[in-house]
Amino acid sequence: MKLELGANISQKKKIVLASGVFDLLHYGHVKFLEEAKKAGGENAELVVIVARDATVEKNKGRAPIMGELQRATLVESLKVVDRAVLGYWNLKVGDVIDRLKPDVIVLGYDQDDMMNEVQNYIRMKNLNVKIVKIGKFGEVARYSSSKIKQKIIDKLSN
Amino acid sequence: MKLELGANISQKKKIVLASGVFDLLHYGHVKFLEEAKKAGGENAELVVIVARDATVEKNKGRAPIMGELQRATLVESLKVVDRAVLGYWNLKVGDVIDRLKPDVIVLGYDQDDMMNEVQNYIRMKNLNVKIVKIGKFGEVARYSSSKIKQKIIDKLSN
Repeated sequence: MKLELGANISQKKKIVLASGVFDLLHYGHVKFLEEAKKAGGENAELVVIVARDATVEKNKGRAPIMGELQRATLVESLKVVDRAVLGYWNLKVGDVIDRLKPDVIVLGYDQDDMMNEVQNYIRMKNLNVKIVKIGKFGEVARYSSSKIKQKIIDKLSN
Repeated sequence: MKLELGANISQKKKIVLASGVFDLLHYGHVKFLEEAKKAGGENAELVVIVARDATVEKNKGRAPIMGELQRATLVESLKVVDRAVLGYWNLKVGDVIDRLKPDVIVLGYDQDDMMNEVQNYIRMKNLNVKIVKIGKFGEVARYSSSKIKQKIIDKLSN
């Protein structure tokens, strides 16, 4: 009992925030999310922001294959994820930070634009938020949505 | 304490066995697995057999898009799944039942061939195994691997 109480006091849950599109879910996504959660320590809560279809279309010029609701539900079905939320309309990165109050923000190797925005906001507001960048996995080439799309086309056109 | 002990005695973990290809994981798969686990009651353990690439190629005439290891790892990353195992080489349904000793075997709407094999084996050996068939979900049309493949081709050929 004592141990449990002690654990509760010293190990306040750290909220880790990660984000992405997560179209055609593959093991690279899971690995990224597992690394993200680790960045919050033993007792982390991983909240994942799943990008809206419209946002993806605007940024990449093409809508995802799977709709936003399907992508978010699938991400939330993963053991490593505590909560998945859809991206917010009309909200800047700073507003999202204010709303979700993360202790740690994790960014992937392809999220440098967001990195700058996050860093600027945290510096400006003098917030106690740790930023962690997760590098490319050695096997990232095997685990990418574009690779999967290409494989589908190759296999189906035979 | 008493309650816990009582619970342990009355609620022996039921092993539920489900199987499938799980190529291009989508929410239909998760829903199927959630229904499967429910069939084992409150305290079920869900073991999922993920079909080998070679088996899929033999049965469907086309290998899956995602390799067997990736499919199995992704399935095991799901909250609802306790354990994912790759299909066994050279083993008949009966051998798999003998090896994994399930209390419940769950079959999907498209697994009628296996249903007959399972039923015959259980009857022959007089085993106490419940067979549960999970019907087509209303939204199955939205959640199917072939639909996803078609969407990819449609979107990329524009």
